[in-house]
Amino acid sequence: MDKVAVVLYSGGVDSTTCLAIARAEGYKPYAISFSYGQRHQAELLVARKNAKLFGASEHLVVEFDLRKIGGSALTSSIEVPKNGVGNDIPVTYVPARNTIFLSFALGWAEVLGAFDIFIGVNALDYSGYPDCRPEYITAYEQMANLATKTAAEGRGRYTIHTPLIHLTKGEIIRKGIGLGVDYARTHSCYDPTPGGAACGLCDSCRLRLKGFAEAGIEDPVRYTVRSGV
Amino acid sequence: MDKVAVVLYSGGVDSTTCLAIARAEGYKPYAISFSYGQRHQAELLVARKNAKLFGASEHLVVEFDLRKIGGSALTSSIEVPKNGVGNDIPVTYVPARNTIFLSFALGWAEVLGAFDIFIGVNALDYSGYPDCRPEYITAYEQMANLATKTAAEGRGRYTIHTPLIHLTKGEIIRKGIGLGVDYARTHSCYDPTPGGAACGLCDSCRLRLKGFAEAGIEDPVRYTVRSGV
Repeated sequence: MDKVAVVLYSGGVDSTTCLAIARAEGYKPYAISFSYGQRHQAELLVARKNAKLFGASEHLVVEFDLRKIGGSALTSSIEVPKNGVGNDIPVTYVPARNTIFLSFALGWAEVLGAFDIFIGVNALDYSGYPDCRPEYITAYEQMANLATKTAAEGRGRYTIHTPLIHLTKGEIIRKGIGLGVDYARTHSCYDPTPGGAACGLCDSCRLRLKGFAEAGIEDPVRYTVRSGV
Repeated sequence: MDKVAVVLYSGGVDSTTCLAIARAEGYKPYAISFSYGQRHQAELLVARKNAKLFGASEHLVVEFDLRKIGGSALTSSIEVPKNGVGNDIPVTYVPARNTIFLSFALGWAEVLGAFDIFIGVNALDYSGYPDCRPEYITAYEQMANLATKTAAEGRGRYTIHTPLIHLTKGEIIRKGIGLGVDYARTHSCYDPTPGGAACGLCDSCRLRLKGFAEAGIEDPVRYTVRSGV
């Protein structure tokens, strides 16, 4: 029987590719998504529609409202920047988001008897979020192995898998295409139109478009504008 | 101006004492509680009613449903054990609970510009939960300082304060009494009657009753049965 892995799945390019990789590595993926009051609810609609199509055995959506905490353009009235990817950590950073996400994934993994958690973080073509860096992931893994009953009882060791961490966006997309990922069924934009077209100008769109350009493939989703990075 | 601290506050003896300690140490406490589908919703009612009475400047209740994840007597149909505190990690352990709680506290702290988080974990008179041990807290703190924008930018270092970690339950209660805590306004029972009386038999009641006995004080809350540990 395949080993179960919990895969963080947002419906975007990275997490969808990550789900495909977990499957290709022989895991039975259990996808987990989060409805956290994000501006781009469209990603969640895409995630709900496609998790099982992309091979998830189960799909859990955990709901909470980070708008109560705020502090990010994705969860408050701060505007999503559209003037290109800068060098600073941008206002789309959501305080402690990956830490919160991984913590629910860890709890679910423990209940499922799984020891493998996949997260599609990337430290090359990314927005500079601190909770995407390898040193953060290593520290999280150490903490997870002290946090849990299963680990405390010596019944196994949790691994946080980050198969995309050292890939460019173009490499991620080529890898996904090789695994049969249909990127038309993904969503990346932070600020889509009500009709679901990607804005083409937010960091997430810019990084995605750059990736498709590098991969030499046309991005199959609809855009209002197709920007450069 | 007093420095803001985020204090994890459940409405029970430990977190209420912790809130009083944070105030006594000169912090302006922002209390955070969690409605996570716990069997003992009574603790949340108590927390909502009393956070500001106990000196919290703000009280945030974050809601999510861990019953979707399960794996604990507190969030599923597993029975709460009432036959005394054992040596094993009990079925009331909630997978990754303190990790999830601290992660929301960390996000809120970052938005508030606070660097101090108080959690009333205790490694002496406790149920053996792995996420109450000092080594877990140290690992969490390390991770938190890599997870966040504020820390990544070198604007400060997060500290997880655990003022109760090496105290017995009796010492905790004596300390709280010294700080003016009214323990009649706290709730600990995992399985209270609909009328709000504590069962007196679950681990949480047993540890609480043992603490009051050690402190030589009568516990002011109502019990169905007053057990020994």
